[in-house]
Formats: sequence, structure tokens, C-alpha cells
Amino acid sequence: MQPESTHVAWHSSKVCKQSRQLSNGHGSCVLWFTGLSGSGKSTLAAELELALHELHCRSYMLDGDNLRLGLNRGLGFSQTDRSENIRRMGETARLFVDAGFIALAAAITPYQADRELLRSRFEPEEFIEVYVRCAIEECERRDPKGLYRKARAGEIRQFTGLSAPYEAPEHPEIEINSEKVSVAESVSILLRYLRSKGYLPADRKGGS
Amino acid sequence: MQPESTHVAWHSSKVCKQSRQLSNGHGSCVLWFTGLSGSGKSTLAAELELALHELHCRSYMLDGDNLRLGLNRGLGFSQTDRSENIRRMGETARLFVDAGFIALAAAITPYQADRELLRSRFEPEEFIEVYVRCAIEECERRDPKGLYRKARAGEIRQFTGLSAPYEAPEHPEIEINSEKVSVAESVSILLRYLRSKGYLPADRKGGS
Repeated sequence: MQPESTHVAWHSSKVCKQSRQLSNGHGSCVLWFTGLSGSGKSTLAAELELALHELHCRSYMLDGDNLRLGLNRGLGFSQTDRSENIRRMGETARLFVDAGFIALAAAITPYQADRELLRSRFEPEEFIEVYVRCAIEECERRDPKGLYRKARAGEIRQFTGLSAPYEAPEHPEIEINSEKVSVAESVSILLRYLRSKGYLPADRKGGS
Repeated sequence: MQPESTHVAWHSSKVCKQSRQLSNGHGSCVLWFTGLSGSGKSTLAAELELALHELHCRSYMLDGDNLRLGLNRGLGFSQTDRSENIRRMGETARLFVDAGFIALAAAITPYQADRELLRSRFEPEEFIEVYVRCAIEECERRDPKGLYRKARAGEIRQFTGLSAPYEAPEHPEIEINSEKVSVAESVSILLRYLRSKGYLPADRKGGS
């Protein structure tokens, strides 16, 4: 799978991650939002991105759907393609973390093996798994993109939770039940977590 | 090539590119360094990244070789794989430009068609093609990674300039002859260009 890549050499940047973090005044890491379609991953990530921006922190949301329209164009929804989709998202998140960002990745990421592989590509504590828990009945009731309806009608195959598995995380850093906790409260929980781990300095208040 | 991607919806971020640019105090764009192996693309991009960092500008280098060890792992050097390699680099650069960065992409990018495709994915003036010109004899003399030697020995196939084509840019925004212009001078030229186009405010002096 790596033809001639032995001839590829790493070029070091003259601006290291630590120097960027120092300049930003906050740490960098990735929050990886996993959960069923309709559980509220992208909504929560977008609100957290806004809250961090208002705190003058560098944050950027990588949305699984958005990446499928660009970087991951051409990939389908087989297990292999989903894994490659997630792998590329993870590598992109690594670049953003290296660039000093708090990266927010929102993608169903249904397979435990993929999530473990993701984690292995980051430094310890740099990968923060956020499980956005929501019963599938509620996700199907919300159906913000009409996907459950299409899946029930047979228009979408391999639909997570119906015709493809979702392996719930066993030990996520953070679990948020989106049926019980509001988006604003969830953002507060995440900001508190980032502060407790030293990714955000204590004096960056507001937004929570 | 886009199985079921009609079911993929775009999630809007609540932090737009303009808001990030305003917060940064400078514009965002990509400088795409193209040229033969050994022409000095990565060296120049790395020095410009450092200069921009010292001017408190958000910049990030995407190096073709580095990406082959992560995001583009598994891709080889056939024309198809090279095109996909460049396409993914371009999509990643788009994300960085959207995130408010001056992205610096360094990759041989030997095919005109690939460069045109890249340009089409950015807004007008956002894609700045930098042709790092250097005679192949000089590149081979420098041979910083020993690749020309390996290519001559038959250890690397499809080597740009020897056994694979390099289609020189006809109308790059900037052309730098690395045999005649020093790295420091080249950085000055690029900073002046960025100021002249309004990507850098005039008051961010120094480094040039």
C-alpha cells in the first residue's frame, strides 16, 4: 500500500506546534464527536466552534458530510470507504492540531476499530472522544436531513443504526446525552473540560 | 464516483472565513509552490512560514512529501495517484484558507491540468501559483534527498524530469529562479506580493 514511499522524506517546519500554542495562548487538541445521524454532533460542534472563536481561541470544525463533498469525494458508505473517510478526517485533524487549533471533528464514526486507530495517531490526551448519545428512535423522530425516511424507503443502503452497525464508545472522555442536555449546557461542559485539561487558560471566561 | 453523496448535506459553520480574517488581521489564501524535486520549494515555503509566523500571521505549510506519510499514505507516483495526491492537498489547503490561514503548499505538481483544477477550487486571487524554477542539472547536482541518484540507478520509476514529465507553468503569479535568487530575497518577494494584494496589512513590517 506504500509504493516507493520509502523515498519520501519528512520536511521539518521551522514553526513548531508549541510555538503556535504559545502564540495563540491556548493548547491544541481534537474533540471527536461520534454518534448516530441526527444525534446532534454537528450542531454541538458548530456551537462550540463559535464559543471558542468568541473566546479568541483558534478552533475549526471538520464535518464528515462537508468533507465528503471535498477531500473525501468519491468515497461511499461501505465499511472500507467509511474507514478511509475517517482516516483522512483524522489526518486532516492532525494537521489542524499541529497548526495550533482546537479541531472539532463531527462524523458518525460507527466503528470502534476506526476510533482506536484515530486515537493512536495523536499524542496522549490530545484526542478527546465525545460520544453524543441519543436513542435511535429520537434520532429518527428528528430526522433533520430526511435520511432515516430515505433509509426506511430503501433509498439509502448501509445506514448506520438501521442497516449498518453503530458500535457505541465504551470509554469516551465525554458523554453527552442530547435528549437530556441542551446544546448550551453541552457547550459549557466541553469548555469546562478543555479548561480542566489546560487546553484553555482559566482566564478565557465567557461563553459558558 | 460519488455513491450516495446526493444524501450528503452541507453543514454551515457559524464562524465564517471573513470573521476569521478580521480576527487575524490579515487575509487568507494559498501559495502553491510548484517545481522540480530539489528546486527549493519546501525550503522556501518553510522560510516564508517562519517569516509570516514572526509577523504574527497565521500560516501553515502543507508539504507534499509530509502528506504522503499521513493523509496521502497509500498513493504512489502514477499520473492518477499523483493527481489524487494533489487533489487532496488542494482540498486540505481549502480548509486552511477557510480557517483564515495563509496556506503554503509545496509539491512538484508536474501536470498543468492538475494545477488548473486546483485553481478552480479557490476563489479568484485566492490561489497564487509560485513557480520555483531551477534547471534540472542544478537540481540533480543539489540532490538533497539523493533521489536523482536513485532514479538514475533505476530504483525510482516515474521520476519527474527524468522518466516522467514536468509541465512548466505558463502563467504563474510568481516565478522565482532559485539559481539566481537567494531564499531570503525570495521570501521578501513573496511578502511584498502578499502586501500588494492586500493579504498582509502594510503595517506588518519586518521579516523582509
